[in-house]
Amino acid sequence: MKVWEIGPQTGIDSLRTATRTPPETSPGHAIIKVHASALNHRDLMLTAKRYGGSKPENRVPLSDGAGEVIAIGEGVTNVKIGDRVVANMFANWIDGPWVPGLFSADYGNTRDGWAAERISAPAASLSKVPGHLSWEEAATLASAGVTAWNTLNVLGRMKAGDTVLVLGTGGVSIFGLQLAKAGGAKVIVTSSSDEKLAKAKALGADILINYKKTPDWEKEVLKATGGYGADIILETVGTASLTKSLQAAAFCARVGLIGGLDVSQPPQIFPLVAKNVILGGITVGSREMLDDMLAAIDAEKIKPVVDKVFAFDDLPKAYTYLQSASHFGKIVIRHN
Amino acid sequence: MKVWEIGPQTGIDSLRTATRTPPETSPGHAIIKVHASALNHRDLMLTAKRYGGSKPENRVPLSDGAGEVIAIGEGVTNVKIGDRVVANMFANWIDGPWVPGLFSADYGNTRDGWAAERISAPAASLSKVPGHLSWEEAATLASAGVTAWNTLNVLGRMKAGDTVLVLGTGGVSIFGLQLAKAGGAKVIVTSSSDEKLAKAKALGADILINYKKTPDWEKEVLKATGGYGADIILETVGTASLTKSLQAAAFCARVGLIGGLDVSQPPQIFPLVAKNVILGGITVGSREMLDDMLAAIDAEKIKPVVDKVFAFDDLPKAYTYLQSASHFGKIVIRHN
Amino acid sequence: MKVWEIGPQTGIDSLRTATRTPPETSPGHAIIKVHASALNHRDLMLTAKRYGGSKPENRVPLSDGAGEVIAIGEGVTNVKIGDRVVANMFANWIDGPWVPGLFSADYGNTRDGWAAERISAPAASLSKVPGHLSWEEAATLASAGVTAWNTLNVLGRMKAGDTVLVLGTGGVSIFGLQLAKAGGAKVIVTSSSDEKLAKAKALGADILINYKKTPDWEKEVLKATGGYGADIILETVGTASLTKSLQAAAFCARVGLIGGLDVSQPPQIFPLVAKNVILGGITVGSREMLDDMLAAIDAEKIKPVVDKVFAFDDLPKAYTYLQSASHFGKIVIRHN
Amino acid sequence: MKVWEIGPQTGIDSLRTATRTPPETSPGHAIIKVHASALNHRDLMLTAKRYGGSKPENRVPLSDGAGEVIAIGEGVTNVKIGDRVVANMFANWIDGPWVPGLFSADYGNTRDGWAAERISAPAASLSKVPGHLSWEEAATLASAGVTAWNTLNVLGRMKAGDTVLVLGTGGVSIFGLQLAKAGGAKVIVTSSSDEKLAKAKALGADILINYKKTPDWEKEVLKATGGYGADIILETVGTASLTKSLQAAAFCARVGLIGGLDVSQPPQIFPLVAKNVILGGITVGSREMLDDMLAAIDAEKIKPVVDKVFAFDDLPKAYTYLQSASHFGKIVIRHN
Repeated sequence: MKVWEIGPQTGIDSLRTATRTPPETSPGHAIIKVHASALNHRDLMLTAKRYGGSKPENRVPLSDGAGEVIAIGEGVTNVKIGDRVVANMFANWIDGPWVPGLFSADYGNTRDGWAAERISAPAASLSKVPGHLSWEEAATLASAGVTAWNTLNVLGRMKAGDTVLVLGTGGVSIFGLQLAKAGGAKVIVTSSSDEKLAKAKALGADILINYKKTPDWEKEVLKATGGYGADIILETVGTASLTKSLQAAAFCARVGLIGGLDVSQPPQIFPLVAKNVILGGITVGSREMLDDMLAAIDAEKIKPVVDKVFAFDDLPKAYTYLQSASHFGKIVIRHN
Repeated sequence: MKVWEIGPQTGIDSLRTATRTPPETSPGHAIIKVHASALNHRDLMLTAKRYGGSKPENRVPLSDGAGEVIAIGEGVTNVKIGDRVVANMFANWIDGPWVPGLFSADYGNTRDGWAAERISAPAASLSKVPGHLSWEEAATLASAGVTAWNTLNVLGRMKAGDTVLVLGTGGVSIFGLQLAKAGGAKVIVTSSSDEKLAKAKALGADILINYKKTPDWEKEVLKATGGYGADIILETVGTASLTKSLQAAAFCARVGLIGGLDVSQPPQIFPLVAKNVILGGITVGSREMLDDMLAAIDAEKIKPVVDKVFAFDDLPKAYTYLQSASHFGKIVIRHN
Repeated sequence: MKVWEIGPQTGIDSLRTATRTPPETSPGHAIIKVHASALNHRDLMLTAKRYGGSKPENRVPLSDGAGEVIAIGEGVTNVKIGDRVVANMFANWIDGPWVPGLFSADYGNTRDGWAAERISAPAASLSKVPGHLSWEEAATLASAGVTAWNTLNVLGRMKAGDTVLVLGTGGVSIFGLQLAKAGGAKVIVTSSSDEKLAKAKALGADILINYKKTPDWEKEVLKATGGYGADIILETVGTASLTKSLQAAAFCARVGLIGGLDVSQPPQIFPLVAKNVILGGITVGSREMLDDMLAAIDAEKIKPVVDKVFAFDDLPKAYTYLQSASHFGKIVIRHN
Repeated sequence: MKVWEIGPQTGIDSLRTATRTPPETSPGHAIIKVHASALNHRDLMLTAKRYGGSKPENRVPLSDGAGEVIAIGEGVTNVKIGDRVVANMFANWIDGPWVPGLFSADYGNTRDGWAAERISAPAASLSKVPGHLSWEEAATLASAGVTAWNTLNVLGRMKAGDTVLVLGTGGVSIFGLQLAKAGGAKVIVTSSSDEKLAKAKALGADILINYKKTPDWEKEVLKATGGYGADIILETVGTASLTKSLQAAAFCARVGLIGGLDVSQPPQIFPLVAKNVILGGITVGSREMLDDMLAAIDAEKIKPVVDKVFAFDDLPKAYTYLQSASHFGKIVIRHN
């Protein structure tokens, strides 16, 4: 079968095609025919060889994808042939809290990912895709969606009427916006582009802040909420931004610090004490969170935002497009 | 000023009018000009002298109302003259969990209620009414709304995609339906009337069960959810119904047993063990829960369902109408 | 190897010895040389063929045991040869909440248990035994200990200073007493025997109630706590007892309804509403809870109470002794 | 009556005596004859005029004290004449979460404190003192004790067997050690003094680290816990120390960032993401937390550590002694 691999070079050029023997069934695993996969910012970091200490050489990239179960191994009962499925990014994080060791089965990083015709996955890592989603839409869910869900509903304990702040319009932020609206929250979105803010508004955003025109966006958040601030913040930018986020936080706010971010500038965290803010580290989430998110996506018939679809053979072009940062929503690969 | 009082007789005939000196400002209290009030089932029980050991004689009835602040006492900072407000039913339950002693300041039961031209209320029990609500709509919120909110969001820890079951179409159930939909849940409603089910559908109900036609409604709940059951149940009927509710419950479901209900028939509770269900007693809620609910009502622009409005002088007619149980939504009194 | 099996008869006579091929290593599993096993009340129910719909014929009994890892299969990393281990009763309940399907891997019921010379166990179900425990002590932990832990610390969210009520001096109650004392709680114990109460006192019990002499023990609980009641109750008796337990409960108490109990008499549950009590079903717990309990047992150097040790060949005598209900603490089988 | 006040100068010299009219009863308040009071580090900061933007001039200092109720105002039911009481530091934080506005009734800062013969306190802020505590011991509890309790049991959700890390041997740390041991935790203490570590050991500390001899104390924490780290950390030093604390944290650890600390050096917080650590700001706690802590202190008969007792007239000497930082435990003032 045809796969993409990450080669030894630094950058997008390191992507190369290869031919591999298709995976065979094994106990507890399912074989999936991949229909679509999707890109995340960390895929760029992996080709750049700048994702922590990861050594992705020879690895099939992409943590996100969707496909059809075409074979199951011994003992598999939760999925059957013909099911449309996605996999949780950390294949062994099924339920309960984040524990040591789960990094070792991270699709597209420490185990082969979705840029392939077939993939073998532990059945326990799989969830069924709601019927209203296309393959392309389903492929976008696993990392950015679950990251936003975890921050909002597990760390954040969101309830209708809460005020949620998302920074920018990347994948996690847009899922954050959609999932927060699905749960009845009021959502504030920041962006440097009025055009992107208009798109966020069309998805339900209540308060829009152009941080280029309003660099003190944290004050604008307070102003727009009558001095109250944001109950939940998806801090996807980094520790420099965190200083402002904590100023924009409500008393007892929950702020999710979301993985792979810029930590070059240490934050001022005193407002965290004064307001009893909770700051929690987020590394995507568990298969149970994926299930819960899919139930919400199904109940509210949420449609993930797909910016652009590339052909399987054009994977490097998709990476280049992601790097240009002009997208709004997810960049998807169609496998056939 | 003119007030209604509960007299010594048993039943609706015990309601009588009286003239009282209007309340004066006192430290920590606000004086409210009442614009509308609303009825709950327990108001019937109080006139029937069948609400636990309550002795409501000479009491101004009604726990629910809305009005305008016309004076404030010393030390009041959370409301000001002109504010449109509602009060939490237990005037001293501000925040935190239910503790002993709070029953002693229960509007319309252990302290005078809203069937009056003016009311004096501890300012700490007051919340401001969202701008999109009329006086009649605002008057309906305090008991039925907060009861539903507490069950869904405090006991129930609801998140988008959860399945919520409400029994019948009384005040708590309809608020339960609306607040659950606002939070992105899938809602199941039971009723003996197809007409009422149609109204519930118009409010967003996803699954409708006529329990007259389908007496084994608990099996229908399981069937309609693919065997999964309901994550959160508002058990407003009584302990007889609880046996079926527990059969309809999902694993780890949260079931709120809601006050003043029929306890004549002890339930079979073994399914609670087998599914690790949580059964929690609910007695309305705190002022903080009222605030949170109002934030949700504001964010989602929820309109409470008003069935019928009566004039202040026609209060006994409103009670009689409530007793007939033909309503869908709340019965409201207009005070001017 | 030599094993005990449950035969077709009804009662303890159904226990029979058999010879089986020792288990071989398989992926994800460990082979354990069993050093000790322990009995629980449900083992009697299983031989009586009265444990729900269980069909235990040909099953190796006993959910509790301890032993040494003598071989590991492919992919096992959490235990190694030589480790002293116990297994979680539900072999697939690793973490997170109770979900459907976990009953299907219940040691001694739906899969073979510990009354054998060797056992093969999914490595994920195993935890390491603290060094201060003998094999006999370690063997007692898995079901009764985790049941008490789950009720106290997961459902009960116990903190130092809470008041805990345990009913009688069975295995769960004694673990409840020891683990509650380890966490700084004040513990109330009921029993029909002053001798057993004296033993409970020696383990740290603060308040002792002989329910034969004081049949209204629920009033005694209130009296002994200045009218406050118990914050956490381990309801191990059944639904008849539950009526009294709910009267003995504090406001917002957490009451664990613990599996396999007498449900012949439906309870009066109205006090649950009036006090906002939480009643939760408990079916032992997860491997994570077992780990957490073992950390507590290690930190506080808790010694489980072993009442009597029988030889492997005398298993039926151990059952008969358990049935006599004269024990205090656990009944253990020594395997060599 | 005689009181101490904070005058306009900078430093301990600003303390001056004054004579004031004793407080009179008012609705909802109790008059307390003060028997003992106690110092906290922030009392030094207040005289230094370096406690945030506080303007403590003319204020009676000290947030901590204990005394006897000698009169009660109208409507007071929770305490009666003769009761031995302490007050919660934030007089209006009764229950529920930290909300805006509570800073405005902070004993010894924004309202008069305990360095007086009599004090008038909102009855709702008062808790009764366990019988085994002397006046001197009771006086130490309100700020340092509740701060430690909140971090351990509210933010920290501590259970027996958890590993708790306290930094140094100041008031919060020593209460943290004692309350953590009461709840069955394993406790790690750091100090620059072997003598103080020996005292901590006598109070139950399990692991002792001299950070002068072992500057990489965070590595020592990991080593001493087999690589696991600390479940709960009381970060009382400041943001510079936080970098090390986060390295010493276990996966999903809860780290309390405790008020008034050194924020001169921004922390490196990336380990918070990688381990999904929860960092929460702590500003003492509510009266409900004070009640809960007192129940634990009563159940476990904990004795707060009193380092030295000064006479009321020697208050400035007590401040000077506190500044010398040679104490272990609390510095107390005896009022008669």
